[in-house]
This record gives sequence, C-alpha cells and structure tokens, in this order.
Amino acid sequence: MNPIYTYEYLRDFTQQFFIKMGCSVEDAAISTDVFMEAELRGFSSHGVIRIKDYYNLWKSGRVNLHPNIKIVHETMSTAVVDGDGGIGMVVGARSMQIAMEKAEKVGTGWVATKNSNHYGIAGYYPSMALKKDMIGFSVTNANPLLAPTFSISRMLGTNPIAVGFPTKRHLPFLADFATTPVAHGKLTVAAKKGLEVSHGFVQDKDGNPSHNPDIIKEGGTMLPLGGDYEHGSHKGYILSSMVDILSGVLSGANFGPFVPPFVGYLPPTNERVGEGTGHFFGAMRIDAFRPAEEFKAKMDEWIDTIKNSKPAPDQTEILIPGELEYRKEQQLRKEGIPVIPAVIADIKAVSDELGLDFDAKV
Amino acid sequence: MNPIYTYEYLRDFTQQFFIKMGCSVEDAAISTDVFMEAELRGFSSHGVIRIKDYYNLWKSGRVNLHPNIKIVHETMSTAVVDGDGGIGMVVGARSMQIAMEKAEKVGTGWVATKNSNHYGIAGYYPSMALKKDMIGFSVTNANPLLAPTFSISRMLGTNPIAVGFPTKRHLPFLADFATTPVAHGKLTVAAKKGLEVSHGFVQDKDGNPSHNPDIIKEGGTMLPLGGDYEHGSHKGYILSSMVDILSGVLSGANFGPFVPPFVGYLPPTNERVGEGTGHFFGAMRIDAFRPAEEFKAKMDEWIDTIKNSKPAPDQTEILIPGELEYRKEQQLRKEGIPVIPAVIADIKAVSDELGLDFDAKV
Repeated sequence: MNPIYTYEYLRDFTQQFFIKMGCSVEDAAISTDVFMEAELRGFSSHGVIRIKDYYNLWKSGRVNLHPNIKIVHETMSTAVVDGDGGIGMVVGARSMQIAMEKAEKVGTGWVATKNSNHYGIAGYYPSMALKKDMIGFSVTNANPLLAPTFSISRMLGTNPIAVGFPTKRHLPFLADFATTPVAHGKLTVAAKKGLEVSHGFVQDKDGNPSHNPDIIKEGGTMLPLGGDYEHGSHKGYILSSMVDILSGVLSGANFGPFVPPFVGYLPPTNERVGEGTGHFFGAMRIDAFRPAEEFKAKMDEWIDTIKNSKPAPDQTEILIPGELEYRKEQQLRKEGIPVIPAVIADIKAVSDELGLDFDAKV
Repeated sequence: MNPIYTYEYLRDFTQQFFIKMGCSVEDAAISTDVFMEAELRGFSSHGVIRIKDYYNLWKSGRVNLHPNIKIVHETMSTAVVDGDGGIGMVVGARSMQIAMEKAEKVGTGWVATKNSNHYGIAGYYPSMALKKDMIGFSVTNANPLLAPTFSISRMLGTNPIAVGFPTKRHLPFLADFATTPVAHGKLTVAAKKGLEVSHGFVQDKDGNPSHNPDIIKEGGTMLPLGGDYEHGSHKGYILSSMVDILSGVLSGANFGPFVPPFVGYLPPTNERVGEGTGHFFGAMRIDAFRPAEEFKAKMDEWIDTIKNSKPAPDQTEILIPGELEYRKEQQLRKEGIPVIPAVIADIKAVSDELGLDFDAKV
C-alpha cells in the first residue's frame, strides 16, 4: 500500500512549492489546480510527480516564472498566444480563457499557443469551458516517442486530444486521451512490474513487434492508436499529426521531432523550427448553435441512450467518457490520494532544497 | 478485370442521372463532383455505387430534390443549417460554403447541419477550404453499426472525420477516415471474397470476438478504432461519439441508434430524436493565425520531416495523409475508373427506368 495524503494536504503543499520557486500566488494556484485535477481523476502521471520535473526545468533555466503572456496575432474568433516560456499550466489556462472570451463575443474562439511548456492534463482546459455552457477542446504536442505507420523513427508525441460537452442532469462528457493505444506512463508501470505489454503498443529499433515495455530505451518507438496498419494505425498517425500541426505549425511552436523534452535532465533539442512547445484550444458557446438548456437536455438523452446499450456478457455497464474519472474523484476526495514512495522521495528532496516542510510519511 | 470507364464518361452520366431525377443543373453538378472525387481517390464505396441508393431513396419519397436549405440560427462564427431533407452532397457543400464565408469575416466558421442525408465522402468538404488557404474540417454521423466499448448494441455509425491543411510545394495534407479499424465497405468486400477478417474488427451478437465479415447480418456489431479495450477501443468509441454529438446533438438531427438508414429498401427508423442525418463543418482561415505563405512553407517542412522518417525494413517510404489518394487520382484520370459488374448492372437498371443511355460494357 502506498502512503495516502489528503487532497487538501497535497494541494496546499503544491501551492507552496510553486510560490517558493517564485511564482505569483495566482499562477501557483492555477498550476496547483491542474496538478490536483490530474491526481483526483486518477492521472497520477500528470500530478505531483511533475513537481520534480518543473523544479529541475526551473533550475536549468528553462522555464520563465514571470512570463509576459501575450496575443501576437488575432481576429474576432482566433488568436495566437506567445507563452514567453512560462509554466504550461499558466500559459494554457490563459489561452483557454482567451478562447472563451472570444466565444462569448462571436460564438467560438480558437487559440494556437507557442513558446509554452508541458501543460499538465489536456482535459483540464475543456472543463473550464463546461462551466460556461461551452463545448471545450484542447490538444498539445509533446516530445517525440511515436513512429508514423511503416516507420521506425521517433517523429511525434503521444499528442493527447481532450473534448468536453456540457450536460444537464448527468455528469459532463469529458474525454482526454493519448493518440496511442496506451499512455507512455502505462509502459513505465509495466516495466517497473516486469510485465510484458500487448502487441501493437511498441516496436524495436528495427521495426519488429515487441512486448518489452522498456524497448523505448533501446531505440524502439511507440506505435499510433490502431497498433499496426491492418488495425488502422494510420488513423492514429493522422490524429497525432493533426494535433502536432494545430499545436506546432499553426502557432509557430516546434513540431514533430523538434518538440523540446520536458525534463530538465535531458538536453534541449539542438535544432529548433519554432518556439517551445505548442498547444491548441477551442471554445464553442452552445447557444451559438441552439439554446443551451435544449442541448443539455438532449445530451442527457444521448447519455441515457448509450448507457442503455446491452453490456457484453462479462460486463455490467457502459461508461460515458469521463464517468470513471468522476467516480475516482469522489473516492479520492473522501479516502485520500495514494502517492508512490519514489515520488514521495523526489518531492521530499525538492522540499528540502527549497526549505519547505513536506511530510514524507516514511 | 472490371470494365473501365473514362472519368469524363462517368461524370457526364452521373450528372445526367441527377438532372433526369429532377435536380437543378447546379445541384446535379455538385453531387456529381462529390461522387467523382470519391471514385478518383479510390473510395468506390462512396462513388457511382450510390446512384442506385439515391434513386431508391427518391422513389420512396425520402429525399427532397428542391430543398429550401436555410440558416435557422447563427452568430458571427457559427450557424445551424436545416437541409430540408435534401441530397447530402448539396446540403453539405452549401453548409461548408457558409462556414467558409464566416471564416472570411471573423477568422473561423462552424456549421452544424440537420435534416440532411448521406453526404458522400467526408474529405470533399475540407478540400473546398484548402483552395481558399483555410484549414477544413468535416464529420458526419451515419446509421448505427458500432457497439461502444464493452457493449453488444448497435449505437453509433462508422462516423468519419476529415481534415485538411494547405501546403505550398507539397500536396495538401488531407485525411478522411472512419472511426473504426476498417470501413464498412471493406467487410463487404471480404465477405464477397469469402475471406476472414482480423481480430478487433467485429464481434458476434453475444460479444464474442469474430473473424466473420458477415457477422453484422447475424446480429453482430463493428468495433471502434482500437478493436478491444486493451488496445484503446474506448478511444475509437470517444471519437465516434464526438462526431455523433457534433453532427447530431448540436444540430438537432438524429443521433446514435436513431440516425436514419440511407438506403431506400430499409424502413425509416420508427423513433426520431431529431431531423434527418447530421453533419458538422469547420473552416479556419490560415491568416487568422499567421501569414498563409509562412504556414504553408512550414507545412512543407513538416511533410519533409515526416517523409524523412526511416522506413521499416520491409517498407520503402512514409506516406502523408492524402498522398496515396492523390496518386490514385493521377492514375485513374489517365487509365480510367474500373467499375464492378454488380454496380454496372444497378446503374444500367436505374438508367433504363429513367430513360437514360448507359453503356453497360457487357
């Protein structure tokens, strides 16, 4: 059993960490909120485990804690935002805010953001829109791990797509998924447990199918959603490419193999084709299409319809995207959040260096 | 070898067919253009094979050849279009035009369309935007064949996603794909040839994995992109759902299992939750983000980068989405378009009934 922390304890510590590193209270609050949403929804790969990564990135001078985030180009429904090398969550939340402000005025808003860093869970940004009766959309590029179909080169990230639709009575539809069969974090977990992974997740450096979750360290690559060509991996490759183009090419950020690594211990990429990491955000006001109450009632009907699907014999219910994560959130708010010892040790080390007090529970 | 027709012959006949059925010359031209683009790109499942389907739909009084296509709700960047039960290609092209007109004015345009019919290949609509230095996007819902992850009920269509990005020197990036591992048409082809299909394409009525491409006729269902949960089928289920919500729920069309069948020989669905079939269209002016020439030059660089990926040992090159289809188009314009005898017989029968002259080549 991993040690358990209350939501409030981890939240308050994370906020103190960002403030002590030098962030404004406001920026610390937003970064903390994104990390904690990740923890609560069960995406611990994007939660407090990232404290060390952001600390190292800051120590190596590769993140700007006082960025001048600004619109460098815009129309009524669009903007390009320069994140000025800031923390991804701060840049991301500001960009999504701009998309929503434009949607308020002309129905929809679309923001391409450059010169940013890792922005946490993609699903955080659409959830900002849901609260305003808007459809929310966000994607980001990420450092390359993935080979295009029929290739053995690392060209694209696991580039996630997140989308949210508001509802009335039901929990909102909120999806957030990597454009690979599994997230990179699941490979790490399998490797730590000494397990093999299924066909279609990874290949070795020569393009042979592999079941070794650690093959990436030996020159292997992840495969796009679909796994192999026969099972539609070209569709996963399209999705990852689409995310990369919207995030990188449209904004003027780096794209494909040039997306900078997020971790401070890896050297920055030598060749640059743009500025920093890129994201893309969208907000569509529901009542720009039909009355919000009407749409939300129909969404409930859509959810009732899908949930009334007949489950396969070994299954008990059909889930709506986001449902599992909301249940997890209910559970973790009540029971607390487990943190693995290796992450605790990392946080403790950062805490000691910054002169903070972290209860390592060991 | 299937009989070969020249592009010009098939185009002229198809146009005559739509005119003789009662369409205006303008509407016949656009419908023909969509069918012929499908043929040229190698999507024969969406080409002249649909002549019979539209003829039967018209004979059964389920398509309006003189629709009053109109905007029923709009903002600066959005519209809901009522297709008035018209031919999907006519309604689709008009809707995409409206999206592009809005993009001209405020940077982007987004149109949700209801009360339409089968609109041919989804990829036709983004290609309209490419010519105007815009990013184009289109999705449509379709009659249900697909079971959500862990379910055995037909709830969603193979709901395609199409997206196009303009380029400078290279062919444009143009993707058009079903949110299933394979398109439904490929199952039909496998069944005709007596072949088995791969794991992850279909399941039987009880949810057991199946290799029988005809299992759909025995109560089976198609599976979402990913195939099974372990390989990320919940991501295919999300994509198909996202398309259904944008096309059906946002526009006020039918959604999920209520999407009407396209073919005249199947009875219309009894229960309705909206009007007709739904689509969704998007257009984003490139220069609403950055100068178009700059973006297009970067897209060329993106394409050069990806194409320089190292191919797997048994492969010779890495393809960009749309590249294969453009090559097919070059080939078929030169060598002619093969049509299978069963489709020729169907077209001949329609031709005779309408008093047209079709060279059946038998």
